[in-house]
Amino acid sequence: MEKVTIATVARRAGVSRQTVSNVLNTPDVVREETRERVREAIAELGYRVNQAARQMRTGRSRLIAVRIEPANDGINGSVLDRFLHGLTDAAGLAGYRVMLYTAAGDDDEIATYEELLSAYDLDAFVLTSTHHGDPRTSWLAGRDIPFVTFGRPWGAPDTHSWVDVDNASGTTAATERLLATGHRRIGFLGWPAGSGVGDARREGWARALGAAHLLGSSAGVEDGVDTGAAAARGLLAAEPDTTALVCASDSLALGALEAAREMGRDCAVIGFDDTAVARAIGLTSVSQPLAEAAGRCMDLLRELLDGRAPSAPTHVLLPPSLVLRQTA
Amino acid sequence: MEKVTIATVARRAGVSRQTVSNVLNTPDVVREETRERVREAIAELGYRVNQAARQMRTGRSRLIAVRIEPANDGINGSVLDRFLHGLTDAAGLAGYRVMLYTAAGDDDEIATYEELLSAYDLDAFVLTSTHHGDPRTSWLAGRDIPFVTFGRPWGAPDTHSWVDVDNASGTTAATERLLATGHRRIGFLGWPAGSGVGDARREGWARALGAAHLLGSSAGVEDGVDTGAAAARGLLAAEPDTTALVCASDSLALGALEAAREMGRDCAVIGFDDTAVARAIGLTSVSQPLAEAAGRCMDLLRELLDGRAPSAPTHVLLPPSLVLRQTA
Repeated sequence: MEKVTIATVARRAGVSRQTVSNVLNTPDVVREETRERVREAIAELGYRVNQAARQMRTGRSRLIAVRIEPANDGINGSVLDRFLHGLTDAAGLAGYRVMLYTAAGDDDEIATYEELLSAYDLDAFVLTSTHHGDPRTSWLAGRDIPFVTFGRPWGAPDTHSWVDVDNASGTTAATERLLATGHRRIGFLGWPAGSGVGDARREGWARALGAAHLLGSSAGVEDGVDTGAAAARGLLAAEPDTTALVCASDSLALGALEAAREMGRDCAVIGFDDTAVARAIGLTSVSQPLAEAAGRCMDLLRELLDGRAPSAPTHVLLPPSLVLRQTA
Repeated sequence: MEKVTIATVARRAGVSRQTVSNVLNTPDVVREETRERVREAIAELGYRVNQAARQMRTGRSRLIAVRIEPANDGINGSVLDRFLHGLTDAAGLAGYRVMLYTAAGDDDEIATYEELLSAYDLDAFVLTSTHHGDPRTSWLAGRDIPFVTFGRPWGAPDTHSWVDVDNASGTTAATERLLATGHRRIGFLGWPAGSGVGDARREGWARALGAAHLLGSSAGVEDGVDTGAAAARGLLAAEPDTTALVCASDSLALGALEAAREMGRDCAVIGFDDTAVARAIGLTSVSQPLAEAAGRCMDLLRELLDGRAPSAPTHVLLPPSLVLRQTA
């Protein structure tokens, strides 16, 4: 196999070697379109940054740590798996490696930080599943340990850089789609109040209904297919006029479809997260740009680690997109 | 939070402290049932082995590396994601961490080994996706680098320890289930010949039919829902007597269900891998014991790393199970 160099990548992407070097070292000075083209060429050619040489130059381990969630129903958990794939790809392109850890809760995760920091030469952390009352960010910030979060602080001090997906705009788009196709009574199937992500998804639906001067009912239950089916059954029975449901997850949406079918009700359904299940059963669903989110997390981390970060933290809110299929 | 010690774990699991210590250090001397009970208690209590203290004692990094596959259709790729979750859990319980890398092929992966070994103090590798002509194992073996594979060598020298799932016994069980429920013309939808896993899955189906003195037709196509639908359409059109299909993947099975529905054919379908999609649509499917496979990989690695490995390599072949749902 011919050795792949920066020159090879530059030729493939149709850019100068300086541009390739910029993408690798100071990606923010390169236009997004060019950056994507160079990254594609890097991925296609399998170009690898010489990590050992870099470490000698920078004195850094180029190792970042991220939590892996427990295995779960495989529907919603796949979102963080996809983020992890994206992060490993983005880290690899930048000459970094990803170390995994598990944790049984916030306190356990903080104890794990201490353990990891004492045992390994880590450069930074990427935190996922941020939530109200999250103690992890202030713990890291108080010790000057570089990190970014995938997810907003949800009420915690907003003093660190983060990347998030605009959940509310996703359910707004879903609701607008249903309004545009003639639905007037549109319910929402979500989670119990109090989770940042769940509340934002409900808020986006409510906002679209409000703008159209319409009312709609909602239910909040633990995530799952069976809980979704039960809640949808209740909502559809209580509201004979409801012809469509926006759901906070594909699991809930799957339950809603089951309930509507059992009840012989014609009901449009839109899920959230565009999981493999949505693709498999033709469920219209809101899709999060997970590879992009992971890439932006890595860009922010590199700014931090290279001392190029602006003095104020950077907040990146990415728009999700609606993937239309058979159910709405 | 009260400090969790070996004594706490022992109390929870109802065993002695020595037994907990054995599970952590020499798991092979503990009965499987007890081992599972102790591991559950460890997971529930969030007990963490003090890694830094261990590293000082052993002089090892307690870091193992595993490849993460590119993101894919989210149906079949989820199998390796589940293995990764299991491996991270098992590694964590043993005081090890998992480092991820990506690679675009065998040569690229071997180049990555060199890079990782030069840049990090790695203890071992876990290899997945073994295949015919796989050059990775002899590269590692030739350099005395500890590793185990999840997957048989498929023709390469069988001189290292591995864990695999008995794919053939899975499709045999699926076919026997269909025979027991009265089907006599049972087709097989698989992949093109030449892949170890795919050939084994076809072989298991053929073996069960042979034992029942029956004939059956098969098709081999690239994995996917659309390819599965097209192949099933062809097979069902050619064989009006076929009433059931055993499939090498849930993607193919999903395509087969689509094809049968379109053609108005009553056709039982069994998939392979028990993915979230199977659970979502009620597809009967063969389930791989992935957490168990990951745990056994970790046990074998620890034997190697602790110098407790028997002189001959250990080969662990785990039986899959059939998860019955609506489609068969």
